[in-house]
Amino acid sequence: MGWTSDLESAMQMLIKTFHKYSGKEGDKYTLNRGELKELLLEELGTYLGNSKDNEAVEKVMNDLDANNDGEVDFTEFIILMGALTVACNDFFLDFQPK
Amino acid sequence: MGWTSDLESAMQMLIKTFHKYSGKEGDKYTLNRGELKELLLEELGTYLGNSKDNEAVEKVMNDLDANNDGEVDFTEFIILMGALTVACNDFFLDFQPK
Repeated sequence: MGWTSDLESAMQMLIKTFHKYSGKEGDKYTLNRGELKELLLEELGTYLGNSKDNEAVEKVMNDLDANNDGEVDFTEFIILMGALTVACNDFFLDFQPK
Repeated sequence: MGWTSDLESAMQMLIKTFHKYSGKEGDKYTLNRGELKELLLEELGTYLGNSKDNEAVEKVMNDLDANNDGEVDFTEFIILMGALTVACNDFFLDFQPK
């Protein structure tokens, strides 16, 4: 043991980042709207743009909060990150020589 | 720019790891069965166990290759990683004080 692959690090970073924000207030294992907004702005500023109240953040929050309970659980967070990662991969591939 | 958050690193590691194996042979943008097996054993040995031909690896390969085309694309890979990350998170939470 001891050695950690990039893939294992990626999984650990996803888990660590979610709980860093979900633990701040209310239910420790879900993100409320404030916690989600903070996570998106602080951790994904590069991808979503750095404006403090931009459309991308609002759109993500509304999409994830479709049932209006105001909470995002870990599975919903992972679905979001998966969709973002696929979008990123497509973006990079567009710049590859065919 | 320049500063990269843990979440952005995680996305980059997922993309980098997939292409490290998908580029080895055949279609550069999909994993064939051999490439997938190599990725799982080399990058996820800690989670799947370290035996060279264990059941976990075979099960993942069969699940992902449901359409029998023998290729796993990036979106399918991300769905697998998402499911594994959610399972890991559940596992860690079971050991948290309630």
